[in-house]
Amino acid sequence: MEKNGLTLKDIYEAEKRIQPHIIRTPLLRPGTLDEVLGCEVYLKSEMLQVTGAFKMRGAINKILSLSETEKSKGIICSSSGNHGQACALAGRTFGIKVTVVLPEDAPQIKINKVKAFGANVLLGPRYYNERMKMVKEQQEKHGYTMVHGYEDYTVMAGQGTIALEILRDCPGIEAILVPVGGGGLIAGIATAIKEINPKIRVIGAQSKASAAYVESRKLGHRVEVQCLDSIADGLTCRAPGNNPYPIIEKYVDDIVAVDEADIKTGMRLIASHAKLVAEPSACVGIAALLGGQIKPRSDEKLCFVLTSGNWDIDMIGKIFNETL
Amino acid sequence: MEKNGLTLKDIYEAEKRIQPHIIRTPLLRPGTLDEVLGCEVYLKSEMLQVTGAFKMRGAINKILSLSETEKSKGIICSSSGNHGQACALAGRTFGIKVTVVLPEDAPQIKINKVKAFGANVLLGPRYYNERMKMVKEQQEKHGYTMVHGYEDYTVMAGQGTIALEILRDCPGIEAILVPVGGGGLIAGIATAIKEINPKIRVIGAQSKASAAYVESRKLGHRVEVQCLDSIADGLTCRAPGNNPYPIIEKYVDDIVAVDEADIKTGMRLIASHAKLVAEPSACVGIAALLGGQIKPRSDEKLCFVLTSGNWDIDMIGKIFNETL
Repeated sequence: MEKNGLTLKDIYEAEKRIQPHIIRTPLLRPGTLDEVLGCEVYLKSEMLQVTGAFKMRGAINKILSLSETEKSKGIICSSSGNHGQACALAGRTFGIKVTVVLPEDAPQIKINKVKAFGANVLLGPRYYNERMKMVKEQQEKHGYTMVHGYEDYTVMAGQGTIALEILRDCPGIEAILVPVGGGGLIAGIATAIKEINPKIRVIGAQSKASAAYVESRKLGHRVEVQCLDSIADGLTCRAPGNNPYPIIEKYVDDIVAVDEADIKTGMRLIASHAKLVAEPSACVGIAALLGGQIKPRSDEKLCFVLTSGNWDIDMIGKIFNETL
Repeated sequence: MEKNGLTLKDIYEAEKRIQPHIIRTPLLRPGTLDEVLGCEVYLKSEMLQVTGAFKMRGAINKILSLSETEKSKGIICSSSGNHGQACALAGRTFGIKVTVVLPEDAPQIKINKVKAFGANVLLGPRYYNERMKMVKEQQEKHGYTMVHGYEDYTVMAGQGTIALEILRDCPGIEAILVPVGGGGLIAGIATAIKEINPKIRVIGAQSKASAAYVESRKLGHRVEVQCLDSIADGLTCRAPGNNPYPIIEKYVDDIVAVDEADIKTGMRLIASHAKLVAEPSACVGIAALLGGQIKPRSDEKLCFVLTSGNWDIDMIGKIFNETL
């Protein structure tokens, strides 16, 4: 049966459930970034997570929460990549059949990885809403359980475990910057943070090219926006998620929109100062400081959730090598 | 007084001394590298160390071992970069004057970093032997303590602490691959490993362009070689170190020479599979597997010491973006 709602207790339970199967990613503190970004910088390095992205947390929590009947029938998901890879590997780990529906224009590296993890890949329409119809047809036909990347509360609870780790590694943290696509990650993190210590700020960041949450907050209700091409391809999302939206409205202090150029500069900074490969979607938080959307105090302890590092290495090289 | 010789006890003592000041870098296990490299891959991620390189371990151990008189006079070192940065920051941390003599052709990023850490920088001759004369003049004039990057036993003991961490994180490790320049790092690691468990293999790797240890081992005594330009600039060294050489002859199982192209491929693999930025010098171990100089069993647990990540990001980008 599907869970309805998300509590701190769910996130603690998720942590116990997934801990043996995930990496407790280090909270890094490359001191030279402080001067560049103008605050005390902490990096939650989820690109070092299994499959190179935080998505593994939610996928494992969901799979380990399924009934035996659900497990025997298998799961299905749709994803621009990282959630798909996570479901594929989580399924293989626990012997569960996984079908992943990907947009037909997904980067080849992501398609290959999902296949390499043993999942069945179906290529569908580029846009989310159309692709979801294909998912539902398959789901009804085969009795699969849908594992939604951000609407599912059990998945959100898994992502929220990141916050528990940050708090343990740096109890004095003052603000956490989180990339926002569909909103599952920040809903999980904000629930954990605000139900433990409401004084810690939780701030979301999106690209200006795909800023559904920023626009919705302005208007006070969920709106659909037009998504332009963004280098932060993992965050493309036309409208806020139904389920994460009210959680985010309740708990998230601010959501800001950043420039594409600042995302690229962020990638370069993370590589040169922290020695980490971050994909563009992971760098919107850093971009928000570079662009001045967030102005921290110089002694403020800020944590950036670096969500993922799965991008074509040639394209990353091109960005590193660009003269800015 | 200068220490003479290196024992396991020195390395345990170094660990206690430096632990509060260094990062216990994670031993990462990006599963997808196993298939590419044909064994069980463990990565000791020293690019995540303070200053982006393992050199901080040795520098701090040395500084904390100085007498009060020595501390008051300050230290001097010569280094193509990472050792210099480490001495500079370690000195600043403990309020000790540091002078760093760099080759006049050192990358600007390395010169800037040494200066940013508050050290006095002198630019000297490109080649090591000539540069050392300048260091000795300064040393005699000002009473500085020389902190040699690989001849100093106290520095070697600091670098050897890497081995203790690897053994704790993976007691079943079977072989450790270590980049070799002057030989201080591998002398420290091999002493720790072989005095704890002689069955674990310790293997060195150098670029074919600068293979003083490989050539010396062939002939049975230290020889000076001609160094060609190598992308692994941090390992350039015309002759094995006086002090590390006998330790390495006693304890290191094999030393291999690798191709420049395999070093570049190694950098790309580390970035795309492990999401880490490794400088070329850090990748000679991976290159040894790619080039077939090392042929592990498919279930063999191999640890690669990824020493550092301090290289111009534009140049790294160019390598990531090269079509192989």
